[in-house]
Amino acid sequence: LPFKLFQLSRRPHYSFITSQRLFNYDCFADRHIGPSELEKQQMLNYLGFKDLDSITNTNVPEAIKLKRNLRLPPALDEWRMLTELRGIAEKNKSYRSYIGMGYYDCIVPKVIIRNMLENAGWTSPYTPYQPEIAQGRLESLLNFQTMICDLTGLDVANASLLDEATAVAEAACLAARATKRYTILYDKQLHPQNLAVLKTRAEPLDITLVPLDEIENPTVTRDVAGVIVQYPDTEGKIFDLQTLIENTHNAGGLVIMACDLLALTMIRPPGDLGADIAVGSAQRFGLPLGYGGPHPAFMAVAKRDSKNSLARSMPGRIVGVSKDVHGNKAYRLALQTREQHIRRDKATSNICAMYAVYHGPQRLNAIAKSIHKSTAYLAEQLRKNDYIVAHSTYFDTIKVKPKNLTDIRVKCEERRINLRFFDDGHVGIALDETILSQDIQDLLYIFGIEMERVTIEKEISETVCPLIGNSDHARRSPFLSHDIFNKYHSESQIIRYMKRLENKDLSLVHSMIPLGSCTMKLNASAELLPLSWPQFSNIHPFAPTDQTRGYQQIFNDLEKWLSEMTGYDSFSLQPNSGANGEYAGLLAIREYLKSIGQEQRKICLIPSSAHGTNPASAQLANFKVCPIESDKHGNINYKDLCAKVEKYKNELAAIMITYPSTHGVFESSIVDVCNKIHENGGQVYLDGANFNAQVGLCRPGDYGSDVSHLNLHKTFCIPHGGGGPGMGPIGVKSHLSPFLPGHPLVPLLGRSEGAVAGTPWGSSSILTITWAYIRLMGGDGLRQSSQVAILNANYMAKRLEEGGYRVVYKDEQGLNAHEFIIDCKPFKKSAGIDVVDIAKRLMDYGFHSPTMAWPVHDCLMIEPTESEDKAEMDRFVDSLLLIREEIQKIEEGLFDREINPLKMAPHTLQVCVDSNWDRPYPRESAAFPAEWCHHKLFPTVGRIDDKYGDMNLICSCPPMDTYK
Amino acid sequence: LPFKLFQLSRRPHYSFITSQRLFNYDCFADRHIGPSELEKQQMLNYLGFKDLDSITNTNVPEAIKLKRNLRLPPALDEWRMLTELRGIAEKNKSYRSYIGMGYYDCIVPKVIIRNMLENAGWTSPYTPYQPEIAQGRLESLLNFQTMICDLTGLDVANASLLDEATAVAEAACLAARATKRYTILYDKQLHPQNLAVLKTRAEPLDITLVPLDEIENPTVTRDVAGVIVQYPDTEGKIFDLQTLIENTHNAGGLVIMACDLLALTMIRPPGDLGADIAVGSAQRFGLPLGYGGPHPAFMAVAKRDSKNSLARSMPGRIVGVSKDVHGNKAYRLALQTREQHIRRDKATSNICAMYAVYHGPQRLNAIAKSIHKSTAYLAEQLRKNDYIVAHSTYFDTIKVKPKNLTDIRVKCEERRINLRFFDDGHVGIALDETILSQDIQDLLYIFGIEMERVTIEKEISETVCPLIGNSDHARRSPFLSHDIFNKYHSESQIIRYMKRLENKDLSLVHSMIPLGSCTMKLNASAELLPLSWPQFSNIHPFAPTDQTRGYQQIFNDLEKWLSEMTGYDSFSLQPNSGANGEYAGLLAIREYLKSIGQEQRKICLIPSSAHGTNPASAQLANFKVCPIESDKHGNINYKDLCAKVEKYKNELAAIMITYPSTHGVFESSIVDVCNKIHENGGQVYLDGANFNAQVGLCRPGDYGSDVSHLNLHKTFCIPHGGGGPGMGPIGVKSHLSPFLPGHPLVPLLGRSEGAVAGTPWGSSSILTITWAYIRLMGGDGLRQSSQVAILNANYMAKRLEEGGYRVVYKDEQGLNAHEFIIDCKPFKKSAGIDVVDIAKRLMDYGFHSPTMAWPVHDCLMIEPTESEDKAEMDRFVDSLLLIREEIQKIEEGLFDREINPLKMAPHTLQVCVDSNWDRPYPRESAAFPAEWCHHKLFPTVGRIDDKYGDMNLICSCPPMDTYK
Repeated sequence: LPFKLFQLSRRPHYSFITSQRLFNYDCFADRHIGPSELEKQQMLNYLGFKDLDSITNTNVPEAIKLKRNLRLPPALDEWRMLTELRGIAEKNKSYRSYIGMGYYDCIVPKVIIRNMLENAGWTSPYTPYQPEIAQGRLESLLNFQTMICDLTGLDVANASLLDEATAVAEAACLAARATKRYTILYDKQLHPQNLAVLKTRAEPLDITLVPLDEIENPTVTRDVAGVIVQYPDTEGKIFDLQTLIENTHNAGGLVIMACDLLALTMIRPPGDLGADIAVGSAQRFGLPLGYGGPHPAFMAVAKRDSKNSLARSMPGRIVGVSKDVHGNKAYRLALQTREQHIRRDKATSNICAMYAVYHGPQRLNAIAKSIHKSTAYLAEQLRKNDYIVAHSTYFDTIKVKPKNLTDIRVKCEERRINLRFFDDGHVGIALDETILSQDIQDLLYIFGIEMERVTIEKEISETVCPLIGNSDHARRSPFLSHDIFNKYHSESQIIRYMKRLENKDLSLVHSMIPLGSCTMKLNASAELLPLSWPQFSNIHPFAPTDQTRGYQQIFNDLEKWLSEMTGYDSFSLQPNSGANGEYAGLLAIREYLKSIGQEQRKICLIPSSAHGTNPASAQLANFKVCPIESDKHGNINYKDLCAKVEKYKNELAAIMITYPSTHGVFESSIVDVCNKIHENGGQVYLDGANFNAQVGLCRPGDYGSDVSHLNLHKTFCIPHGGGGPGMGPIGVKSHLSPFLPGHPLVPLLGRSEGAVAGTPWGSSSILTITWAYIRLMGGDGLRQSSQVAILNANYMAKRLEEGGYRVVYKDEQGLNAHEFIIDCKPFKKSAGIDVVDIAKRLMDYGFHSPTMAWPVHDCLMIEPTESEDKAEMDRFVDSLLLIREEIQKIEEGLFDREINPLKMAPHTLQVCVDSNWDRPYPRESAAFPAEWCHHKLFPTVGRIDDKYGDMNLICSCPPMDTYK
Repeated sequence: LPFKLFQLSRRPHYSFITSQRLFNYDCFADRHIGPSELEKQQMLNYLGFKDLDSITNTNVPEAIKLKRNLRLPPALDEWRMLTELRGIAEKNKSYRSYIGMGYYDCIVPKVIIRNMLENAGWTSPYTPYQPEIAQGRLESLLNFQTMICDLTGLDVANASLLDEATAVAEAACLAARATKRYTILYDKQLHPQNLAVLKTRAEPLDITLVPLDEIENPTVTRDVAGVIVQYPDTEGKIFDLQTLIENTHNAGGLVIMACDLLALTMIRPPGDLGADIAVGSAQRFGLPLGYGGPHPAFMAVAKRDSKNSLARSMPGRIVGVSKDVHGNKAYRLALQTREQHIRRDKATSNICAMYAVYHGPQRLNAIAKSIHKSTAYLAEQLRKNDYIVAHSTYFDTIKVKPKNLTDIRVKCEERRINLRFFDDGHVGIALDETILSQDIQDLLYIFGIEMERVTIEKEISETVCPLIGNSDHARRSPFLSHDIFNKYHSESQIIRYMKRLENKDLSLVHSMIPLGSCTMKLNASAELLPLSWPQFSNIHPFAPTDQTRGYQQIFNDLEKWLSEMTGYDSFSLQPNSGANGEYAGLLAIREYLKSIGQEQRKICLIPSSAHGTNPASAQLANFKVCPIESDKHGNINYKDLCAKVEKYKNELAAIMITYPSTHGVFESSIVDVCNKIHENGGQVYLDGANFNAQVGLCRPGDYGSDVSHLNLHKTFCIPHGGGGPGMGPIGVKSHLSPFLPGHPLVPLLGRSEGAVAGTPWGSSSILTITWAYIRLMGGDGLRQSSQVAILNANYMAKRLEEGGYRVVYKDEQGLNAHEFIIDCKPFKKSAGIDVVDIAKRLMDYGFHSPTMAWPVHDCLMIEPTESEDKAEMDRFVDSLLLIREEIQKIEEGLFDREINPLKMAPHTLQVCVDSNWDRPYPRESAAFPAEWCHHKLFPTVGRIDDKYGDMNLICSCPPMDTYK
């Protein structure tokens, strides 16, 4: 029976919990929401409102207002929430999993867990778009890229992609783009989930997938864009790929290898073999299985021409080395102008990088050798006992023909071990870093072989490292020889290195990060704690579902709760990011239209103010994008909409719309817009990026939307992690439910097709964060969060307005939603000040800039979130007002137009202390422009020269002697 | 049957673990020990030694060398250690404990756990003797003192004492000192452990303890130093103390109240009642039970005269407010010249302070009210059901006469609840912050009363807050009204506040802290992890021992392992600090001498270079201190020793000696010294402060010592925590075993007397750290640690010597042990530079100063420990060499004798950036005197004026408007 994701259980445990509030109860919402009761009242008074309801009743249009309370379980305090969640965790059974398929248990050094994974200094910064206050994690990501380049033997790597399956699909698209061909040959022994996601991706893009006939000597025709192989393959076998690579190159195609990163320490890497693109997962470099993630994937490419063209069209972010205005080396995101719609896994790639930094090449090699020896020993014992072991060249995975499959299944259960059961009746065993003699003993026992532990230990230790190490497949090239991987091997060293990097970066532990549409709210400790519980972290994504009842309860609860909040009928938790959710949602629309015979509908209307991911996703789903204009209030131009709808009446597939709009306004026309689309046969995709302004106030499913993704990493407290990991589940109305993503290995509602991620429920382990947040807040708390987010934004907007900034868009009542845009264009003319100068100057005030130049050029979009208190917002507003005064001094000629605190910003400590200070403004105004700056974080480099870096692309650690 | 602490089990589980090393094994010793193999060899070459053995064979005297390997279980890697320890933890049973007696479960906000308790930035700094780089934790400790003053209603509080029982004993001594009287009246309803420790302390000091006849109207004569009462008393009753206080004051005595801190939010505080001294435990303000600790105790005193004399003779450290050279407010340890031999609980008091900062007065009051209401409800139900509840005025504790005691015991077991069983057949119930309706239901069930949870909830919520809140006992005075307790109530606010404080303080996450004799070595994450496991943290110190088999195994293992390392026969784990251990050891000697009819032996010989705690402990045990001179090598002057021994032949009780000496030398005469003492009827107390240079190399029990304490917080990796908590277990030869501390509630080897701490095994929970360290290192790792500690010290000594510093003492071979002293006296004359100038200047280089002016005036004592790598030591040495060059510039007249970088050190950021810089040296040499200073921690205040602070004693948070 396929597992029923959507079968909701109605457990009657709420009454018990409600009543506990009578006891000593520490209201979590009061801890999560920043302003005190007094501060809320002060802000309401300032804005001229009586209470929270009166402000949100004013700006949420009457037609869409939710007129009842959310039906969610009442809030628990953090202690009781954790007690309840621990009970749920206990329902998971944590077996030893030797399933493999790209997911392996590993030992995460505790020093990295405690100081990185469990440390808000690392989990709470934003994507490093402001590199001057992000050198720490940029360095760490550069380490990640260097590690990937070294291990794959290729030239340029990114940091990073969602998962290996997505990376395989991305690589296929890259090959198609690069060769302008649309046929991909694939190895039948790809991991099944890799193939599934590749298939999902290929179909709408008209990429033809053809299985490889003969892997060691395939026929490759001149229409082939690329050949994709798994290395070692899903059965564990290592093939000789020389001929394949030769044939492919001769036909003008590219070779894509999906690799196991640890195996590459022992076997010939893609670069040495001559492959063009390598992808894979870095999971086993220090990340728990977590029933699916989050785990970062990588992509690396060869430098095939002087233009580095493969690298330049590679998806995902790339960290590059450039220099700052003082000529010092500095890191930043390279090639930012490229299309970048795939979210990445920053926080997790940092952990993988630090795992490699801590272990270094020798220890990594020792880990790999130990696994390989154990595997070889296991294979030998099985052969001795007349088992047929399918392949003779392998790293850590073998495939065995069992004598009695039922017996093996029974013994697996007895020893609490998971193996892979192939459809052909074979059994797969993949070993990992955690393996002990006891585990080998248990594995042999499962196959009816009884051996003493001491014998096993003795024999393994006496075995010379066999096979691969002495074969043609053996790796000969060195790796991780850069200093960075060879100097932090004691715990004191690594902890100081991590701390040094952490202390270069501004994060939520320092000050608010008021990013428009990015919702940098509090990630509470109690929400993050369960991530470290073994019952959640030690579960293989393909473990049988009867071992994961705890997780299933989390999924059920979330589906139920998110449905209640959004008004949708069902949810898919598979998409690993907002963009991935958009894509899955559009695919559902596409399939639905097909199912009702409307496949000719290909037009997707998108307002000009939309997130850049919207048109990108639409293209991936093979829709034709048609933009809609905005009116002067920033709303959708209803007239233009009507005209376009009329024009494309029969081709209209969907509209993608963000609500409240990306201009920070609750548009009153939303119901009309939805109706208009539906009347003309289209579907409404409502981008959930701004759902945090709606929770408890209105529901997309009520006012006409058919599908949305929710950014759990924004609205529901998964930490930003310097750019990831995220989760983008999608909710749909019932007519779209049958078209939600399936999974080849764990069919969802019976559906195996349409996977958009490698694992059935995406990065399952971080769903516990969202679960905890909702459980802590309850319906009332969540509603109040939305209200305070709106109150905070309007308070800041009004203060800034009174201080001389123009707020670009407002609704008819003169209010904003949870974010707003201020206009910085006038300063360009009046003082030669660009918005970037203001952004950099904010660093001097100890703050991270709001979103620059999006969705409106030369503007800043500000979103305070509900977690910021009035005092913190006042400091931020005061900073902008002081900057306004500085601009005025330029306008009045009191400051030089070039050498002024804004143009020169940000000011590093080194500059402020420099004896040769020759600027026409005092040092104090550089270092401590406001009173609170005495405990600010100083930028560690001056303003960075992006052009230089893009022209001189360096994406791995430069040699030590180039450092000054 | 009394629990047998010393009955060692010999579990045969080692063979299994040894063999696992053949598998993938990440040697923890390699992570703990700083220098790589290459660096070790480089340093050995530099010193002219072949290998580690050849250096330690040279400096450890042949006569005492351990000629075999330590018989300890072989090392595990951190993953396997944690697996084994988790198995041990599972043997503890975590019942709900309503035993009370000064220990209550509580809910620690996760944000505080994660960002403070589990954060090396808070756990790894040193005692704040260098206040310029310790303003963060000094502020936090000042918050603690303010909280104590507010809650007790008294004027001056310290931060902090070992535990409530010790605090009671200290208060009695303070009263005796202040009144010069030697009789103490005590409440018979003191917690038994408080009385026990008081008795232990009083006896050698000839303080007479007399039980109070009538608590509400006692007779107090004019020889009474003080009257001690428990408030509420151990049975939970709250007495009217007005008459007692009046009578005592009329007789010229002092009133000491041992208080429950949470109760003080509701009942009249000692200050309002007119008491003089309040003591108590702050445990229930956010610290887990931990089977006994660590928990900080407090003492607060009234200002009785203009000289503040009670405060000035109060034990424990006091943080005070002073100003720095720039006139800014700055915190520092006040009154440092006082005798300060009692170690304190810094890290834990920080947590209690942050608990109060986070909750604020309203929430604390709500917590207290909720507990009180539940207690009142419980009492009412019991009375309704014909139980006799002993007292009618109480806060959270009631005493009940059961109908059928056996039935109650059975039902307690069934519901996994611990109650207090009085000797008189009554039962005590003490509620706490964690209480839910379910718990009340279970408690009622135990007494045969069945009630529905909903009924309980309804009735409790409908009860008006009764009794205390409306009685004469009700507190009327406000508390925690200072801003600091009313502005950080959201999680974002508290996390930023904690981070801001953390980032003001230098700790091991920044750089080495090379404190002579303080051994600031690595505290590895894997060692600290188990502290957070509920199986260790949720156990009441007086829980039945059959619930604590896991802990008992830890104790057994530790006793066995420490005995093997030291050569002693048995251990007591009770002493909570090194000084407490010294005291317990001397008491054992005292009792032993008494037992063999030698009570006239009262002379304790102590070398002049001894730790200050040595003579203080000797006096507490009523020994007469007789100093021994040092010779020119810093060794004990053997001739002087012989003369003194001869002189006091019949009175000689003991010698207290540190080995290797506090001068950092392995004295070759140690065996002779021990023999000489024994020949003359004395006992040898060997101070274990420097045991980290001996582990695996020599054993005190072998070369003639009878008793030692070990500083688990130095040698065995319990983090320094900014000054605590520590553990100072003592090892003894078998003839002293019968005189080790007992415990009144949990007899140890049948002994109830001689308790030196409130709990039988001291701060049990942190013993897991030491267990983990030993298990991770194994015998070889521990031995190599000692060797590398010695290698590192000698490497640094030689480099400094070559750079022009004189190393004051060395052994005959020209070597040092694990620490050494450099002479700074010459610079006083040549350049007017004091040792403190060098210490402060080191801050500019990003380092914490070594120990100043101890054990030799005008010198620095340096101890690198084994955890520091060569590069870090080189940076530190280079800093001292650069400072030497700066001194030379003064000597040569190139620098001014007053306005130079040393005299002006440390330089804050503000000073370095000041536009009005008018110093004759460049800003860069202030801010970045060396290349690595670009990521140093800047001091946040300038040099502090101690005299000003001592003259104007301010020991609680000053009003906000006094801040600039």
